[in-house]
Amino acid sequence: MAGEKPQLRIGLIGTGFMGRTHVFGFAAAQRVFDLPYELVLHTVADRTEELAAQAAQTLGFARASGDWTRLVEDPEIDVIDITAPNAFHKEMALGAIAAGKHVYCEKPLAPLAADARQMADAAEAAGVRTQVGFNYLCNPLLALAREMIRAGELGEIRSYRGIHAEDYMADADSPFTFRHDPAGGGALADLGSHALATAEFLLGPVEQVVGDTVTVIASRPDGGGRHRAVEVDDIGRAFLRFANGASGSIEASWVATGRKMQHDFEVYGTKGALFFSQERFNELHFYSTADPAGRRGFRRIEAGPDHDPYGLFCVAPGHQLGFNDLKAIEVARFVYAIAGKRDEPFGFRAGQRIQELVEAIQASARESKWLRTG
Amino acid sequence: MAGEKPQLRIGLIGTGFMGRTHVFGFAAAQRVFDLPYELVLHTVADRTEELAAQAAQTLGFARASGDWTRLVEDPEIDVIDITAPNAFHKEMALGAIAAGKHVYCEKPLAPLAADARQMADAAEAAGVRTQVGFNYLCNPLLALAREMIRAGELGEIRSYRGIHAEDYMADADSPFTFRHDPAGGGALADLGSHALATAEFLLGPVEQVVGDTVTVIASRPDGGGRHRAVEVDDIGRAFLRFANGASGSIEASWVATGRKMQHDFEVYGTKGALFFSQERFNELHFYSTADPAGRRGFRRIEAGPDHDPYGLFCVAPGHQLGFNDLKAIEVARFVYAIAGKRDEPFGFRAGQRIQELVEAIQASARESKWLRTG
Amino acid sequence: MAGEKPQLRIGLIGTGFMGRTHVFGFAAAQRVFDLPYELVLHTVADRTEELAAQAAQTLGFARASGDWTRLVEDPEIDVIDITAPNAFHKEMALGAIAAGKHVYCEKPLAPLAADARQMADAAEAAGVRTQVGFNYLCNPLLALAREMIRAGELGEIRSYRGIHAEDYMADADSPFTFRHDPAGGGALADLGSHALATAEFLLGPVEQVVGDTVTVIASRPDGGGRHRAVEVDDIGRAFLRFANGASGSIEASWVATGRKMQHDFEVYGTKGALFFSQERFNELHFYSTADPAGRRGFRRIEAGPDHDPYGLFCVAPGHQLGFNDLKAIEVARFVYAIAGKRDEPFGFRAGQRIQELVEAIQASARESKWLRTG
Amino acid sequence: MAGEKPQLRIGLIGTGFMGRTHVFGFAAAQRVFDLPYELVLHTVADRTEELAAQAAQTLGFARASGDWTRLVEDPEIDVIDITAPNAFHKEMALGAIAAGKHVYCEKPLAPLAADARQMADAAEAAGVRTQVGFNYLCNPLLALAREMIRAGELGEIRSYRGIHAEDYMADADSPFTFRHDPAGGGALADLGSHALATAEFLLGPVEQVVGDTVTVIASRPDGGGRHRAVEVDDIGRAFLRFANGASGSIEASWVATGRKMQHDFEVYGTKGALFFSQERFNELHFYSTADPAGRRGFRRIEAGPDHDPYGLFCVAPGHQLGFNDLKAIEVARFVYAIAGKRDEPFGFRAGQRIQELVEAIQASARESKWLRTG
Repeated sequence: MAGEKPQLRIGLIGTGFMGRTHVFGFAAAQRVFDLPYELVLHTVADRTEELAAQAAQTLGFARASGDWTRLVEDPEIDVIDITAPNAFHKEMALGAIAAGKHVYCEKPLAPLAADARQMADAAEAAGVRTQVGFNYLCNPLLALAREMIRAGELGEIRSYRGIHAEDYMADADSPFTFRHDPAGGGALADLGSHALATAEFLLGPVEQVVGDTVTVIASRPDGGGRHRAVEVDDIGRAFLRFANGASGSIEASWVATGRKMQHDFEVYGTKGALFFSQERFNELHFYSTADPAGRRGFRRIEAGPDHDPYGLFCVAPGHQLGFNDLKAIEVARFVYAIAGKRDEPFGFRAGQRIQELVEAIQASARESKWLRTG
Repeated sequence: MAGEKPQLRIGLIGTGFMGRTHVFGFAAAQRVFDLPYELVLHTVADRTEELAAQAAQTLGFARASGDWTRLVEDPEIDVIDITAPNAFHKEMALGAIAAGKHVYCEKPLAPLAADARQMADAAEAAGVRTQVGFNYLCNPLLALAREMIRAGELGEIRSYRGIHAEDYMADADSPFTFRHDPAGGGALADLGSHALATAEFLLGPVEQVVGDTVTVIASRPDGGGRHRAVEVDDIGRAFLRFANGASGSIEASWVATGRKMQHDFEVYGTKGALFFSQERFNELHFYSTADPAGRRGFRRIEAGPDHDPYGLFCVAPGHQLGFNDLKAIEVARFVYAIAGKRDEPFGFRAGQRIQELVEAIQASARESKWLRTG
Repeated sequence: MAGEKPQLRIGLIGTGFMGRTHVFGFAAAQRVFDLPYELVLHTVADRTEELAAQAAQTLGFARASGDWTRLVEDPEIDVIDITAPNAFHKEMALGAIAAGKHVYCEKPLAPLAADARQMADAAEAAGVRTQVGFNYLCNPLLALAREMIRAGELGEIRSYRGIHAEDYMADADSPFTFRHDPAGGGALADLGSHALATAEFLLGPVEQVVGDTVTVIASRPDGGGRHRAVEVDDIGRAFLRFANGASGSIEASWVATGRKMQHDFEVYGTKGALFFSQERFNELHFYSTADPAGRRGFRRIEAGPDHDPYGLFCVAPGHQLGFNDLKAIEVARFVYAIAGKRDEPFGFRAGQRIQELVEAIQASARESKWLRTG
Repeated sequence: MAGEKPQLRIGLIGTGFMGRTHVFGFAAAQRVFDLPYELVLHTVADRTEELAAQAAQTLGFARASGDWTRLVEDPEIDVIDITAPNAFHKEMALGAIAAGKHVYCEKPLAPLAADARQMADAAEAAGVRTQVGFNYLCNPLLALAREMIRAGELGEIRSYRGIHAEDYMADADSPFTFRHDPAGGGALADLGSHALATAEFLLGPVEQVVGDTVTVIASRPDGGGRHRAVEVDDIGRAFLRFANGASGSIEASWVATGRKMQHDFEVYGTKGALFFSQERFNELHFYSTADPAGRRGFRRIEAGPDHDPYGLFCVAPGHQLGFNDLKAIEVARFVYAIAGKRDEPFGFRAGQRIQELVEAIQASARESKWLRTG
């Protein structure tokens, strides 16, 4: 009885934590939204046939492959979803684009901005839709915040402070990983990219930056009994100048002991202010100078059906979305974009942009001066 | 390649908000857990063939029916899931049980405890597994709270305070619904049942109650241009005595302006205390007298992989589960119970128990005296 | 150059924690407010001449006495301030009233309501001004809450929940004190009295109550190596009916491990709601249904100069008053009342009222039925 | 009977908000602490004899003068307390020091660091004790934070974030004041100085800075019907390097709409973390990796008698100090320092240091490069 919608057949490359999260996202998006396509988990690829077969079983894909290029070449597949290690993103994405497929790629799009640009250029030339997984932006309350800012509810925006701090690298004995690779690694690239994406999502383009980067843990175990020197930043900071005239700052840290998800921001305007913490991401705090004297204060707005698309998940306010729900919204936006029903949500060009900002901050930190950001 | 697991074929009766939420739960449970069965959305029933067909399309069921008895009789269906209006729960459940099917029923199990008892008796006699949808109990942090209490981390428990307050009936112009039906309606039955379930989940059986019930809005629009008198409580309260020696209270209100999901509790023991709010249900606050002097305080524990089964949803702490994730956990527990892999989570007997507590509180309020609760 | 104001000469009986706090209050009130009198610390009394002399030195009194009756008889003294143990309040107050002096008495006014009534009657007959130390009521934000309620900013009030919980008696080894005396002792009298005073301050008279009292710690060390049975409540609860039609509850506990000052309330009306915690007593949270859809939420109002008399303490908002500042406000209100410049703030009649409510709740708990409260 | 202690006679210059706050501080310190001196409010000076006489009456000084040099010369006066406008601090302080008096000066010590240095040098040469009013440092919980850091409870400190944001200059129509004077004005000098003082109080010396300063409101009304261009910063930011190896940042803003007292910090170490907000300055939040897995979280420590000198104000925890109480602690520390009973708390040398940091940040912002800070 189902099946009247056209199918959108997905090939997933990579089956780790993020691959699994994407599959949750496909499943939930399918149920929650009235998508223009039926999403089909077509084929999953992993390093070996065995791993892929096992993942297909677990994740619910019809087919499996130990060779990702097979997915790219398969004419039955419409979308390539890349959750493989960063180092492979470029080759995989370019292959998929060359085959005319839409591409969904986990962040970061590529270790270097130049690579990201090449990928974005290719996608534009091929006319395919792309998406990079900046899921915090999919929070209905971030959409609300942006809407409030654009509608002038805060007046003219003057300043911004953004943070993304966690502690998963706080232990000096946690091993050297690809995230510590001098090409594209570091807290600024991994977490600061989120802080920058949120900053530009809310306030528009950043025009100039001054950066500050710090390596806190000089070396980490290499997994082979030795230590390997770390060159990337454990903490990155930047002062910002936005095109709209506001100034601000962001900070990224993966050594912030005790912090699990401190993706926070504060925005101050002439008529009001907002603050938000991803630690309680179903709440947005709003101060308005329009409230009467003696009654003013930051108002805790709880997410609800007034904040689209919350109502598709739950008809009642205050019940709260979870992290995986944000991923479902991300998937839905991409699917709508493929169907031409809305703009590309956070495509490869946006991913490139964030990489450029990260690199500008890193360069500024090295040179200790303000740099323009495109 | 999938399909090696035995199937568990589900027949859903009722396609409103809760029916939809259940389907989200089936889909998510399937993805997130390594369930012992493959869940199959077999048939959905609604009042008419047309509505059912439409729901099958939207919700992803293979078949549809305008007659729920067809599902009960269908030998291909293993589980009957009831999200129809309360008044039908009993007949549907008894039919399903008679047909040897496992039954998953939204709360309240039945308007009256006597009915609930009959349903629980039938299920036990038939040897089928049952579940009532008390989803707040599926929060990993509630499991943590119970574990801490049982392990003595709070010492001997002395007192408890539970609340479930919302504001969806606060408007005097909101219409008379089945929730206002003198048989089984009221805030105590609708919301207080959650507060009572959480109280017994954490501290064990309640032995005595004193009740207080208040009708705040004397009449509501009946949908036909008139007003209908309301006899049920808009606010219900009770003092409690637990078998473990603790005393406590609960309060239920659906006229608590501004509250969307205030399902809160506080537990005080000789060595520590807990407090929790469903408004921020990924946090549990813990005070321990074992902390050193000058360093004591309520500690905000954020849900994470240490709190099973959070880790199946997300490998990183602090990312937060949503309301629909709790429903997925509820589904998974039921499926494991059907497979005989864990105890019945919150079955019909438990549902009956909650109804009895509600009725005891109502009776006590009428008689203005302490009543024993079985 | 000072000294043009008439003097108000104070005789203090009792030099413990509360005596000291009162002296802080006199000193601060003098500085902060432009009082109609110059407050003079005239004489302090304690159990012996030596103790009194030492207290005079420490607290800044001009004279000292080991005999409190000397203060009462001293024609130079205008105000008798009683911070001696509860058992002596009545005799001291009646003596002072008989001598025509204004009386400031720490709470509780007397162990039994009948005594309190006698004291209030005497004061009224003598035409002296009285005050009982219910200092939480002196918070500018409680005045704001009352003003908002009275002005209809919350609409018609429907429900109330009040708590006063601390943990200073949570240790079973803490000794038997006068607070455990069967005549007038218990958590309800000690802390519940505050919860009741706040409830009536905000919503007006309570008309009916149902009580619940629990002795958690059956005996306590008597200081002489033995244990003495405790008959008073460690936890007290009540359901309330207010004259304005609202229903509510209060709870008092001195065994709430981890709680230091949980004097909290929530008020729900047809158009809005308030919640407050003494744990953060410079904040009042306000929800208004008049806010636009999608922008509603509890608003954290920080105390500031808009909330009289905060501005006398500090010209800038958000700087925060402390506990001792509330005592200064209490003193000032009493002094203004003595000067005939405002109503008696919380006089003996009000103190009597609270004792009556406490006793009604205790009686109701014994008899397990609703009782009218005058 | 009192009067056995030696007197410390105070001459106050300046009778505005801060003068009044100081007098509150003297009065409260006298009552709360067992100070080694009796504090005597000897003489107050204002611009005219009339104003001074009126202030003497209001504030409780024995004498008044329209000429501050009279106080400096008066041999009966021991301490000169300066709360006059910043521009006069230097002349007044140098005069007082020359006369051998101890000097208590409101912040900032002087508009320029060079002046502050001259003042500090003079005080050291004269052997008098000095104090600058950095009252937030007097919070018992800041002492606790420092003690925890020094004792290694957080392990090795890695990063710091400090903020001081208010909104009292957010209105573009608020007039040009001495705070906007190019010599010494700006948010960084006014509020950032607090953020810097707290940073060094907790972590020790800052060694290098990069600054960022922004003028948000280009001109303000000059009080004469015109607008005057503003050259100072409305927002100032800095990256920091501490001598202990940690990195960090501070931000100051007086245009942060909605913020009344956001003097906040976060400290991250290898074993734990702290966060604090002056908006709730009776709470300190502490995370310890030593807590067991699944039980970790930021712990809300409420100020109490364990945190000296809270217990002198109140014997019970959780009752909370107010802003004026912090001033009383500041006064007490100064008096103890004068008596030689403890180190100078925050003397002129410390005031100079903060000015130097402010100027280094300003210079760095102009030059856009890292600068060493002495």
